[in-house]
Amino acid sequence: MSDTAAQPLDHAAALEELALRDDYALNPEYVELVVDAADRGDGLRLRELLGALHPADVADLMGFLSSEHRAEVAPWIPLDELAEILPELDDRIREEVLDLLPPGALAEALQELDSDDAAAVVEDLEEHQRREVLAAMPEGDRAAIEKSLAYEEDTAGRLMQREVMAAPQFWSVGQTIDHVRSHDEDLPELFFDIYVVDPAYKPVGAVPVSRLLRTKRDVKLSEIMEPVTEIAVDADQEEVAYVFEKYHLISAPVIDAGGRLVGQLTVDDVVNIIQEENREDILALAGVTDAGRDAKVLGISRSRIPWLAVNLATAMLGAWVISLFEGTIQKVVALAVLMPIVSAIGGNAGTQSLTVTVRALATRELTAANSIRTFGREIAVGLLNGLALAPLMGVVAAVWSGDYRIGLVICAAMVLNLLIAASVGVLTPLTLSRLKFDPAVSSAVFVTATTDFFGFLIFLGLATIVLL
Amino acid sequence: MSDTAAQPLDHAAALEELALRDDYALNPEYVELVVDAADRGDGLRLRELLGALHPADVADLMGFLSSEHRAEVAPWIPLDELAEILPELDDRIREEVLDLLPPGALAEALQELDSDDAAAVVEDLEEHQRREVLAAMPEGDRAAIEKSLAYEEDTAGRLMQREVMAAPQFWSVGQTIDHVRSHDEDLPELFFDIYVVDPAYKPVGAVPVSRLLRTKRDVKLSEIMEPVTEIAVDADQEEVAYVFEKYHLISAPVIDAGGRLVGQLTVDDVVNIIQEENREDILALAGVTDAGRDAKVLGISRSRIPWLAVNLATAMLGAWVISLFEGTIQKVVALAVLMPIVSAIGGNAGTQSLTVTVRALATRELTAANSIRTFGREIAVGLLNGLALAPLMGVVAAVWSGDYRIGLVICAAMVLNLLIAASVGVLTPLTLSRLKFDPAVSSAVFVTATTDFFGFLIFLGLATIVLL
Repeated sequence: MSDTAAQPLDHAAALEELALRDDYALNPEYVELVVDAADRGDGLRLRELLGALHPADVADLMGFLSSEHRAEVAPWIPLDELAEILPELDDRIREEVLDLLPPGALAEALQELDSDDAAAVVEDLEEHQRREVLAAMPEGDRAAIEKSLAYEEDTAGRLMQREVMAAPQFWSVGQTIDHVRSHDEDLPELFFDIYVVDPAYKPVGAVPVSRLLRTKRDVKLSEIMEPVTEIAVDADQEEVAYVFEKYHLISAPVIDAGGRLVGQLTVDDVVNIIQEENREDILALAGVTDAGRDAKVLGISRSRIPWLAVNLATAMLGAWVISLFEGTIQKVVALAVLMPIVSAIGGNAGTQSLTVTVRALATRELTAANSIRTFGREIAVGLLNGLALAPLMGVVAAVWSGDYRIGLVICAAMVLNLLIAASVGVLTPLTLSRLKFDPAVSSAVFVTATTDFFGFLIFLGLATIVLL
Repeated sequence: MSDTAAQPLDHAAALEELALRDDYALNPEYVELVVDAADRGDGLRLRELLGALHPADVADLMGFLSSEHRAEVAPWIPLDELAEILPELDDRIREEVLDLLPPGALAEALQELDSDDAAAVVEDLEEHQRREVLAAMPEGDRAAIEKSLAYEEDTAGRLMQREVMAAPQFWSVGQTIDHVRSHDEDLPELFFDIYVVDPAYKPVGAVPVSRLLRTKRDVKLSEIMEPVTEIAVDADQEEVAYVFEKYHLISAPVIDAGGRLVGQLTVDDVVNIIQEENREDILALAGVTDAGRDAKVLGISRSRIPWLAVNLATAMLGAWVISLFEGTIQKVVALAVLMPIVSAIGGNAGTQSLTVTVRALATRELTAANSIRTFGREIAVGLLNGLALAPLMGVVAAVWSGDYRIGLVICAAMVLNLLIAASVGVLTPLTLSRLKFDPAVSSAVFVTATTDFFGFLIFLGLATIVLL
């Protein structure tokens, strides 16, 4: 391949060996090799290095590079692999790479993709670029992409591929196989189920491809088909993920309002959705808006400041509660020392209840059928935890301050605040979900604000009554 | 079906209609119907109600019932559906149901399952029950289950199914299809790829079943096979999930230390792993050990107390810092009012950095190749956010207290604490991950403990210097 074949790193096999670590992640040393080649402007070496990678790893690699290096590397991605790499890239990076490509090359690459992946790429193009690319594509492909984009974002319609393998139920296994062999180009790149449709093109069953393979040629599809779970074209992606997971689906037919087959969803798209939804939940609980891996400092800062500002406002509310008791604190400074303990433990317990509840809502383990039982259980857990930990803290506080009444006050305040934490931890996401909001977003800030507020109020209030 | 057919609810179709809500979750009203029938001990009605549900929904239903109702309902699950329901149940519920079944019936149900699902069920049996069930199974099925259980938990070996469809590369498409038709009973229930193996039974490629179908009978497998991603039998389930997700795999061959094909993993198992790993991460970040949906109050309490206790200890550490400045607070009570603001904003910002870092580690977007850049970026974001919010707080504090020096002190303390928050938010999970610990576990407690500690120390320390 290369004229310096004596160095093992120049062999394609050795490069492939080096590319991935044992845990299948891209090897940092390999990234270094790419960076070096990019710095030297060594295009041949770049082509060699990129050629040894799976498209998904090329996409990963792009994520690890700086903008400047990406601009150096992008032109050396082989055009036939570009189609597979584009859908894998993070949105921001994809936009960057798309800007570097001539519309003609892009139009060609997109024709290699199934309609859902092609639409996802086109979606990211700027208006003028999109027009040029679509104009350079054949009529059929263009129409498929335009139809895809007509569906709302994050719905089954947008995510599905329009290519499906459908057959009438009176067909035999042999007829079906012959049809597949002769209509190769109209079929999806990969398919896992053959959808059996009635004359109105409504799905009535599905035959897994492996079952078709193992059945004798003269058997009718209607004899071997199984019931299908259909997905409405306007179903939200979260619903799609839930159905796939629950029924262990590999693919599912998508139907329009009239019940007619219009496309299919496959499990690999759904894995992406599941990860995306999980990411959203975990970030929302921490009060972070997703700024993307490659976001610049200013963008990240802007994505986090809103929640910090809300937190600042709620912290001021807590401070206001404390200020009501300035006189008490002046007389017993020990209270200032102890009060953050009451609020901290409340915030912690509230976050525990909150997270468990958000998770149970996401997996639909928590519904109207068991919400009251769940609430009761969390309250009981809060009480139990309070009774276990608060006396301990009471003793420590009494000994340290030399005043048993301070011990009693902090003990009572902790138990009460843990009960508040449990209530607000369950009720906040339940209420948001009932009102059709995402139960994860803004829950955490509200829960800790509440436990801070009541933590200070109860502790300092009780102290004022008992000590003064 | 029933002699009260006049009531629409007795029709199977009407029952199916009622079973699920629009979002595909089990309808609470349906759960009520089951509870009513169980209370009346109406077995025929229970059989009818269960019969209208998909096995996955029966499993869901069991999760919504109390122990007593479960014991009433379990005997009415049709034996042929039991096999499919058992792997779907939560661990605790499965153990309960297994206890209710005679070993003979269980052995029969298990033979319906692929080896991975059967092993997962057997794993949950108590020692004596396991012996009886295995003894009641045919030799071949028993051996497969025992081999499965010999692999470590959460590895590819334990998760894989031993049944695969393998073929030598010199076979033609026609030969392969004929083989599948004649060896039906040795093959997995469903398969998506045919693994092409060399004479030593090492995988050299794979042919998706749909490609086999669309190719002419006389073409050789070696001409249409594509490269495969092999998974080592001892690979951890997290690695398995990562590989499937990255390369959009539907199935993958599992190989032993000698490189020989020993089984396969399919994407539906992987979806479960992904959800499990995500669940672990999200709960770990909130300091919750997973106690399972059906855990009793005492069990849940026990699972949460350890982290609350750690939190209590770290809160006491924060209190100790405050106690060092009792003299200062006595003189300027306003400091007691303001100090929780400094610690709260630090804890919040630290949790943001932490969550983003944990997530990036989980998706391997963060590796040694970009850890320094990520760290620098978080510090810059912390500084920027500090510069945006701290002056605001400074003005509010100065106006409220009537002392501009207090405004300056809180402004400086907030900026410094946000820098500490960013550092500890990134470094904690990075360090844990470098030491091969789960980066999510215990990170949050450590981060907020640090921001509390330094928040109080910096604010009160600066105040002592500036004000006294």
